[in-house]
Amino acid sequence: MKDNKGSLIFTNHIEEAISDVIDGIRPKGIFILCDTNTGSLVVPRLRSMCPALSDAPVITVSAGDTAKNIRSASEIWERLIDGGATRHSLLINAGGGMITDLGGFVAAAYKRGMHCVNVPTTLLAAVDASVGGKTAVNFNGLKNIIGVFSNPDASIISTTFFTTLPDHEILSGYAEMIKHALLSGPKDFADIIGYDITEGRNDPEGLLDLLRRSVSVKAEIVTKDPHEHGLRKALNLGHTVAHAFESLAFSRKAPVSHGYAVAWGLVVEGVLSHTLCGLDSTVLHTLAAYVREHYGAFHITCDDYPSLIASMRQDKKNISSDHINFTLLRSPGEPVLDVTATPDRIETALDIYRDLFSV
Amino acid sequence: MKDNKGSLIFTNHIEEAISDVIDGIRPKGIFILCDTNTGSLVVPRLRSMCPALSDAPVITVSAGDTAKNIRSASEIWERLIDGGATRHSLLINAGGGMITDLGGFVAAAYKRGMHCVNVPTTLLAAVDASVGGKTAVNFNGLKNIIGVFSNPDASIISTTFFTTLPDHEILSGYAEMIKHALLSGPKDFADIIGYDITEGRNDPEGLLDLLRRSVSVKAEIVTKDPHEHGLRKALNLGHTVAHAFESLAFSRKAPVSHGYAVAWGLVVEGVLSHTLCGLDSTVLHTLAAYVREHYGAFHITCDDYPSLIASMRQDKKNISSDHINFTLLRSPGEPVLDVTATPDRIETALDIYRDLFSV
Repeated sequence: MKDNKGSLIFTNHIEEAISDVIDGIRPKGIFILCDTNTGSLVVPRLRSMCPALSDAPVITVSAGDTAKNIRSASEIWERLIDGGATRHSLLINAGGGMITDLGGFVAAAYKRGMHCVNVPTTLLAAVDASVGGKTAVNFNGLKNIIGVFSNPDASIISTTFFTTLPDHEILSGYAEMIKHALLSGPKDFADIIGYDITEGRNDPEGLLDLLRRSVSVKAEIVTKDPHEHGLRKALNLGHTVAHAFESLAFSRKAPVSHGYAVAWGLVVEGVLSHTLCGLDSTVLHTLAAYVREHYGAFHITCDDYPSLIASMRQDKKNISSDHINFTLLRSPGEPVLDVTATPDRIETALDIYRDLFSV
Repeated sequence: MKDNKGSLIFTNHIEEAISDVIDGIRPKGIFILCDTNTGSLVVPRLRSMCPALSDAPVITVSAGDTAKNIRSASEIWERLIDGGATRHSLLINAGGGMITDLGGFVAAAYKRGMHCVNVPTTLLAAVDASVGGKTAVNFNGLKNIIGVFSNPDASIISTTFFTTLPDHEILSGYAEMIKHALLSGPKDFADIIGYDITEGRNDPEGLLDLLRRSVSVKAEIVTKDPHEHGLRKALNLGHTVAHAFESLAFSRKAPVSHGYAVAWGLVVEGVLSHTLCGLDSTVLHTLAAYVREHYGAFHITCDDYPSLIASMRQDKKNISSDHINFTLLRSPGEPVLDVTATPDRIETALDIYRDLFSV
């Protein structure tokens, strides 16, 4: 019954899409997972649009990445047990990447797998978390370290819910679209740098098309390498540094958005790409100027380097903790996998990042 | 690198088998998971036999099913993180089913999947937990409710470690072999009831052959239906009642061995098979006499019926919590899947069980 998992539905007619998906699954019981934000903004709209959801119990967790942990997973499991959920029941994850990652893990591990549908409500979740089957929770201050590969039955991708997103949420998602464009080629990179994303929420069909194009870059890679044995590492561009920045921000009790961390991470890894793989400096400077203008800077000093490098050693993609591996770029559209950088090289790249951002 | 997962190696030359498996995986770092029993009895032998394991960190959890929980999983994840484990590292689960279930879940969810090899040290783990890819922990007093399907890279099945097992451990494993024989046919059932299992530990090669034959019954079913969509439910014979007995024993703070619960569960479900599917009463009485002689009785009164039936409603194999489904037998070798029994029928079967066992 789960053999056609992972379908991607791009639509601005959510109610039809959800009804179709539910008709296909015919679940024994439906549960909606949301956070305190989507619980008030999104879930009432979903329930009023879709009669099948009007009686579905709603499980709400605190908004924010700090709630993406084993304790939250345990609370959701308790609610599912109390509600009589079986492996034939359906969990609808309505929220950003925190909810789709957490809910995906909860569903995958509940009775060894219940049905699960993602309804991403942020641009970041739509472009990234909704495709690829990565589920996870944070653990001991480390991002996404516990989780499994498990595709939802479907992801319903829509710009419907973006109209009320604040600018920083839109920009957070756009960072992954910049990454996909860098992996795709110079034309996509130029187009993505050229699109006025701050107006995107007023352009639902145009943005949905751009989203379809961006997600297809990821979907193509993931289909070829679902379990990250090789090619999929391309998607790690910007992320080794991004996760280290997120861990640092978390330890400072001032978490940053994943997308912002990715934008900064793309710049630091752009510097490494320039020094280690010959990435053209024009691309690097175009990227850095765009990120600086829209995302501002993440403040670090050289005192932060040891903890940043320790976090990078913990990256799941490393073959051993003695080596720190990156996905870098030779040029837009030409990623280079498994490039080892020494701590010295990384510190130099962080120095250059600080120069570029005047921090 | 994980594409040939799940290989079964039957051997009484453990050291060669482990070396071969490690040569195949070429892991970056090896960790051994054991419990307080296998930590003193088995791990020193493994480490002295296998030079590759002599420096491997040993992670020890408390023995017993109560330690098979999310907290233990979290403690193991912490040790793996502290030890610098990556997804290319190997976790060797050396122990009974508690260790292979727990370690299998820990490995599957650590950085979305690290390498994992099972070395079952009990007959029960060898015949059951080592094949099929079911990993799990208990949660909120419910057995195996959280977990995923994930095959180890290999299971090394040997009778080497059985020589020191107490009788009740041998009998616990033998219950699953009785189940496999009931699913296989009248000849296997007669042979298994005829074999002197209490002498089995002095007959390592004979028992290894019997084990190979028994595991093949399960392996054949699991290969056809890895995610329990249909045929695999046959393996649930005896288990709906067994899990309810285990939950009850757990709540009494007097846990019983899974295998003993299966033996008793086979009898209760044998009664249901007789009333609902026409199982010959001779088979039922042969089975009940054997179980009563070797396993004694599990004491229940009619006051326990409501909690037993509530547990059965929670069984993962139910389509909804309104129905209690069983795998039953028409005759040895002829399982019948998804037989719904009403609470009345179940209470009557429990009454007959109590008569058969004079409790």
